[in-house]
Amino acid sequence: MSDTAGESLADRLVAANFARCDGVLHVSGLDLRGLAETYGTPFFVYDADLFRRAYRDLAQAVEGFAVVDYSVKANPVPAIIRVFRDEGAGAEIASGSEFAASWAAGIEPRHILFAGPGKSDLDIEATVAGGIGEIHLENSEEMARVAEAAGRHGVVQRVAIRINPGPDAQGGAMRMGGKPSPFGFDEEELEAIVDAVEAEPRLRLSGIHLFAGTQGLAAATLLSQWAYGLSLAERVAGRIARPLETVDLGGGLGIPYFSGDTALDLGAIRAGMPALIARVASDPRLATARIVLEPGRFLAGPAGLYVAKVRAVKLSRGSRFVITDGGMHHHLAASGNLGQVVKRDYPVTAVVDRGGPRSPCAVVGPLCTPLDMLARATPLPDLAAGDLVAVLQSGAYALTASPTGFLGHPRPAEILVDGGTAREIGPAGW
Amino acid sequence: MSDTAGESLADRLVAANFARCDGVLHVSGLDLRGLAETYGTPFFVYDADLFRRAYRDLAQAVEGFAVVDYSVKANPVPAIIRVFRDEGAGAEIASGSEFAASWAAGIEPRHILFAGPGKSDLDIEATVAGGIGEIHLENSEEMARVAEAAGRHGVVQRVAIRINPGPDAQGGAMRMGGKPSPFGFDEEELEAIVDAVEAEPRLRLSGIHLFAGTQGLAAATLLSQWAYGLSLAERVAGRIARPLETVDLGGGLGIPYFSGDTALDLGAIRAGMPALIARVASDPRLATARIVLEPGRFLAGPAGLYVAKVRAVKLSRGSRFVITDGGMHHHLAASGNLGQVVKRDYPVTAVVDRGGPRSPCAVVGPLCTPLDMLARATPLPDLAAGDLVAVLQSGAYALTASPTGFLGHPRPAEILVDGGTAREIGPAGW
Repeated sequence: MSDTAGESLADRLVAANFARCDGVLHVSGLDLRGLAETYGTPFFVYDADLFRRAYRDLAQAVEGFAVVDYSVKANPVPAIIRVFRDEGAGAEIASGSEFAASWAAGIEPRHILFAGPGKSDLDIEATVAGGIGEIHLENSEEMARVAEAAGRHGVVQRVAIRINPGPDAQGGAMRMGGKPSPFGFDEEELEAIVDAVEAEPRLRLSGIHLFAGTQGLAAATLLSQWAYGLSLAERVAGRIARPLETVDLGGGLGIPYFSGDTALDLGAIRAGMPALIARVASDPRLATARIVLEPGRFLAGPAGLYVAKVRAVKLSRGSRFVITDGGMHHHLAASGNLGQVVKRDYPVTAVVDRGGPRSPCAVVGPLCTPLDMLARATPLPDLAAGDLVAVLQSGAYALTASPTGFLGHPRPAEILVDGGTAREIGPAGW
Repeated sequence: MSDTAGESLADRLVAANFARCDGVLHVSGLDLRGLAETYGTPFFVYDADLFRRAYRDLAQAVEGFAVVDYSVKANPVPAIIRVFRDEGAGAEIASGSEFAASWAAGIEPRHILFAGPGKSDLDIEATVAGGIGEIHLENSEEMARVAEAAGRHGVVQRVAIRINPGPDAQGGAMRMGGKPSPFGFDEEELEAIVDAVEAEPRLRLSGIHLFAGTQGLAAATLLSQWAYGLSLAERVAGRIARPLETVDLGGGLGIPYFSGDTALDLGAIRAGMPALIARVASDPRLATARIVLEPGRFLAGPAGLYVAKVRAVKLSRGSRFVITDGGMHHHLAASGNLGQVVKRDYPVTAVVDRGGPRSPCAVVGPLCTPLDMLARATPLPDLAAGDLVAVLQSGAYALTASPTGFLGHPRPAEILVDGGTAREIGPAGW
């Protein structure tokens, strides 16, 4: 999905995931203008069928090699977690409240994995007491705290070692490996930490977790990361002289956000499966392991739209500004302030676009700061106060990753469309 | 306050604003370790006396020229607004909820100014109905909506025109002027918009608001911005043939955050006053106007500390990581993700530092993302799990400007220390 002349990423995403009827953007058959009337603006709307499609596409692409869990931090609304659970997903969580949300969504604790570099005592206690499937150890202090909690509850806790891969990993394919990291244990110390976990009777070393990278759009890179993960798993299984139960290869599957981004090629992923499957099948240390991918962005991102209403349109020194009621307080990532080094425009589209001429617009929010900009120069048709605009790819790392209290504006509704009907979800409606 | 050999910005800020007793950081006589025991970590703590000192220092520096209001968006806790109100401040607000917070803090509506590029109908309605002192018009649609609200309430609403200064403003001193902007009206259109407001019987044009810039540390730049604001005020007063009632010269006074930053020289500001005072006094169009500065960061920033507890310390490939329970979910700005192009370290200090050797540390939070980093290479003494670290300059644009829901960790306490006693403030305790 790379840019072609005359068709923007926004247009291609609309064509692939949504529909226009008489120029009006619809989500699963529902007119966005109607949702705006019912729920007020701004709001997030998610299409449950798009969650399912992303899940099934990926699960089928890696079938026979890995299963797909959902990384809850991408979007922790229980109603969304439940959609993935119904597809067969377990959950990867990063806090006690994500454990609770996953549980509320019907995921069994034994299908939940807990990662995160600074787990609190409370969260360790709650997840151990709640029968969590596996806790990913990130440092030695944490290992001791998990063992203590297990001792208090009279259980042997299954744990995985999170590994920060070494500098030689696959000739540069490990985008976040080889460097110092607060996450997990350096690969160079792997045998020492394996031995330390094995020496701890209240812990059972059941797996490994590979820290892989984020927003990966290149199939070859992901395949080589996964192969490297298998080699680390073999190394750990060899050290403990028994097969591993889980091999968590992480998430990190990306989606196109910017002009020029090319979507991950699932066909190329599928083409890489026979080699990985054969390798696993031929190695008794891995053959019985549950190999897991746990993406969040890839599963949840495309299904979500952030819809805002235009409050004013103004021309300032030759630049057109579309001032909306939505902004960085709900969608920090779209404003370019969630880790982006270079600020580029998320795909933004007009909810009503009947094909007339477009001109580049800055789409800004209501906050009293120049940071509150949802797009810098995105082509939009003529708009006026009352019209709606939508930010695409907004299903992951959007509302919960945003400073919702900044300047004290109301919280937006979150709406799930499923089977042709819409309902409010989020904190107000699980 | 620029860096000198051997003394970091953090050390100089501690010496200037706080105290160490036997190596332990205190806030207004209270041991931070005791606050951590009482309120849990992480937490924000604010020293009311430092709020007052910043207010008085600035008010005295501009005495005779301008009065000082508080820009509520910097930190909207009513208990903090009240400290500034008791010093004599009015409020500059950016939303209806900030209006409510200012009112709750005891500021009379007539001493409140409302700015913001995308004001909602609800907020316009609430502020007009509540008798707000002045609404700053940012675009023509907004002018019409304010006039309608005034009509519905049978009042003539005082309004100011927010001006986006032109490219010739003071030879580049206007750091955010001269460019296209979503804020206010371009200077080039000033007469037309003045005439439009004057033609609207439900509005009374009482002032102007100059969009000046942010984080200004150079006194000369600020003085020239203010002088330019006076010239715009004269131009508007000339057009309407009567004196202005208010001239809002904005905020934009900075504080040092980074190594090498030099604090704003209030002595140089004071030295610039006689010329400005003489100019105002000699011009009947300005002589009766209330000239306003409305900083937020300058008043609130230095009084606040964000205190987090160390959960683990680890060495990874030669780099030392201090993993804490505090992070970007409470302090996005310190993580470098609130508009910073280049990520530099906020001043961070160990709560207990008895003068031993320091080594550079990365201070990271508990979130499962490499963005969650409070400092990249800040010199700290040996630390272990259970120790405390403090981020300085954390009184403004900190908690409310952060994605508090990201990964579902608990909200931190906010504590105000005043007269030697501490109490919890924030949403849970106005």
